[in-house]
Amino acid sequence: MNIAVVGLGLIGGSICKALKANTFHHIMGIDTDKETINKALKAGAIDEEIGVDRLCEANLTVIALYPFSIVKFVKENADKFKKGSIVMDICGVKGYIVNNCTPILEEKGVIFIGTHPMAGTEHSGFDYSSAELFSKASFIITPTENTPQIAIDLVSTLGACMNFGQVVIATPEQHDRNIAYTSQLAHVVSNAYVKSPSLLKADGFSAGSFLDLTRVAYLNEEMWSGLFMCNKEALLFEVNNIIHSLTEYRDAMVNDDIDTLRELLKDGRIQKEKSMEFYGQGRK
Amino acid sequence: MNIAVVGLGLIGGSICKALKANTFHHIMGIDTDKETINKALKAGAIDEEIGVDRLCEANLTVIALYPFSIVKFVKENADKFKKGSIVMDICGVKGYIVNNCTPILEEKGVIFIGTHPMAGTEHSGFDYSSAELFSKASFIITPTENTPQIAIDLVSTLGACMNFGQVVIATPEQHDRNIAYTSQLAHVVSNAYVKSPSLLKADGFSAGSFLDLTRVAYLNEEMWSGLFMCNKEALLFEVNNIIHSLTEYRDAMVNDDIDTLRELLKDGRIQKEKSMEFYGQGRK
Repeated sequence: MNIAVVGLGLIGGSICKALKANTFHHIMGIDTDKETINKALKAGAIDEEIGVDRLCEANLTVIALYPFSIVKFVKENADKFKKGSIVMDICGVKGYIVNNCTPILEEKGVIFIGTHPMAGTEHSGFDYSSAELFSKASFIITPTENTPQIAIDLVSTLGACMNFGQVVIATPEQHDRNIAYTSQLAHVVSNAYVKSPSLLKADGFSAGSFLDLTRVAYLNEEMWSGLFMCNKEALLFEVNNIIHSLTEYRDAMVNDDIDTLRELLKDGRIQKEKSMEFYGQGRK
Repeated sequence: MNIAVVGLGLIGGSICKALKANTFHHIMGIDTDKETINKALKAGAIDEEIGVDRLCEANLTVIALYPFSIVKFVKENADKFKKGSIVMDICGVKGYIVNNCTPILEEKGVIFIGTHPMAGTEHSGFDYSSAELFSKASFIITPTENTPQIAIDLVSTLGACMNFGQVVIATPEQHDRNIAYTSQLAHVVSNAYVKSPSLLKADGFSAGSFLDLTRVAYLNEEMWSGLFMCNKEALLFEVNNIIHSLTEYRDAMVNDDIDTLRELLKDGRIQKEKSMEFYGQGRK
C-alpha cells in the first residue's frame, strides 16, 4: 500500500524507517525542508518525495506535525485525501485533534484516526529518528464510536510491524487525562525543578534523585507549549493537585509538625507501593 | 585501629562490610537489635559486638543512626568515648548534627566530624547493606574551622578505602543548602507526584518520565521526616521555589497565554542545558 508521511521529524522519520525496515509498503514523504527530504531519501526512509497534490494516491496518510499544524493541514488539504483512505495523526494530545479533524474528513468520506506512539527522546528532528524508536513502547489508538473496526485493525497491525510492545485502545478523553498525569505533568515538574537559584551551586552533590527529577526538563518548548494548551483542563487538574500536595508538606514544616509531615510522607510511600503493584514495576 | 559502628542499618552495615573488605581494621558493632548483630557477625561485617562501655577502646566511632538519635546518643555517652578519638556521623543533614555534637565532645577532648556518604537505596536495614554501596558515590565531609586536619585526612582516606568516587569538603551550611535541592526536594516532589487521583488509572500509559519522577517516592518516612525537620529552612526555600515556578505555568495556562507558557518552558530548557554543562551530564 501507499503510505504518505507528512513531517519527517523524530516521530515521522522513525515511522518511515520502521515501516521500510519491517513492511513492503511504498513510503511517500512530505516535508517543507528540502534538506530533510534529501536525508530521508539517502537513508532509504522514504521511497519518494511527493507534493500534497499526490495525497490522493495514499491509502494511509500519517500526519506527524505539531498539534495546531495538524488541524491546519487537515483543513487546508481536506479535498486532497483519497476517498475511503485513512488519515492518522501521531501527536501527544487526542481530544483536540480528534474533535477537530474527524468531522472535516468524515464529510469527505475519509476516515480519521488519532494515535499516540508513546516514544521519543529529548531531541527533535530527522537526524535522531530510528527504526527502533518504538521498540517495546505503548501505541495508543483513540477511535471514536464511528471509527470502522477495520481501520483500527489496520493501524494496530502497522503498530505491530513497527515493533511496539503493546497497543492500547482508549477514548481521546481517557488518553488526555492519562497523558496529563504520566507525561505532561512530569515535563512541567522537571522543567520547574531546574529553576531553583541553587541549580549551579551543588557540584559534588548531584544525586541520582536529582538526575531522575530533571531528566525531561530538556524539552522542545515549541512542541510542548502547544501540547499543554491543547490539553489545558486535564493538565491544570494535575498541576493543581501537585501544588496542593507540596503545600501540605510545606505547611507541616512551617508549623514544626513532624507527625503530620511523617504521615504525608507515609501516605506517598503507600501510594508508590500501590503504583508499583498496579504497573508491575520493580522498586529498583 | 579499632572502629566502633553504632547502628547496623543500610549505611552502618555497608560501612562495616566495606571496611572489612578493604582494610585491616578491627570492627566492633553496636545495635539494639540482637538479630541484626547476629547477621552482621555471620556475614563477617563486624569482628565482635560491644556494649557502650567499650566505646573507650575505639579510635573512631561511626554513629549511623537517624538525626535525632545521633544527638541523643552523643549526649548520653559523652563520657564513654576515648579522649583524642574521632566520632563521626553519616546522616543526611549536617548543620543540626555538627552544631549539637561538636561542643559536647570538644569539652571531653573528643573530635567530632560530620560526614554524608551520598549513597543509598529505597530499602532500609542490614539485609540490604553492601560493601559496594559507596562505589563511585560522593563522600561529603563537613569539618568546622576547629577540626584538626589529621582527622579530616583520616576520614577521607577511609572514604577512599570504601571506594567512594570523590571526597567533597563543605561547610555544614553549604552541605545543607545543596542537599535540600539535589536530594530532599526530589524526595518531596516525587512523594507528592504519586498523590494524584489519576495514579492507578493510567495502565498502558506509564512513560519513562513518570517512572523517573516517581522513583524516590518510595521512602522511609521515619528517617526522611527527621531529616527534613533538621533542615527546615533550606528545604522550605526549595519547596517554595518550585511551588512558585509551578504556579507560573499554571497561571499561563489559565490565562490561555501560550507565549508566556513557551517562554517559561524555554527558560527551563536553557537552565537544564546549563546544568548539564555544569555537572558534566550527558543528555541521555
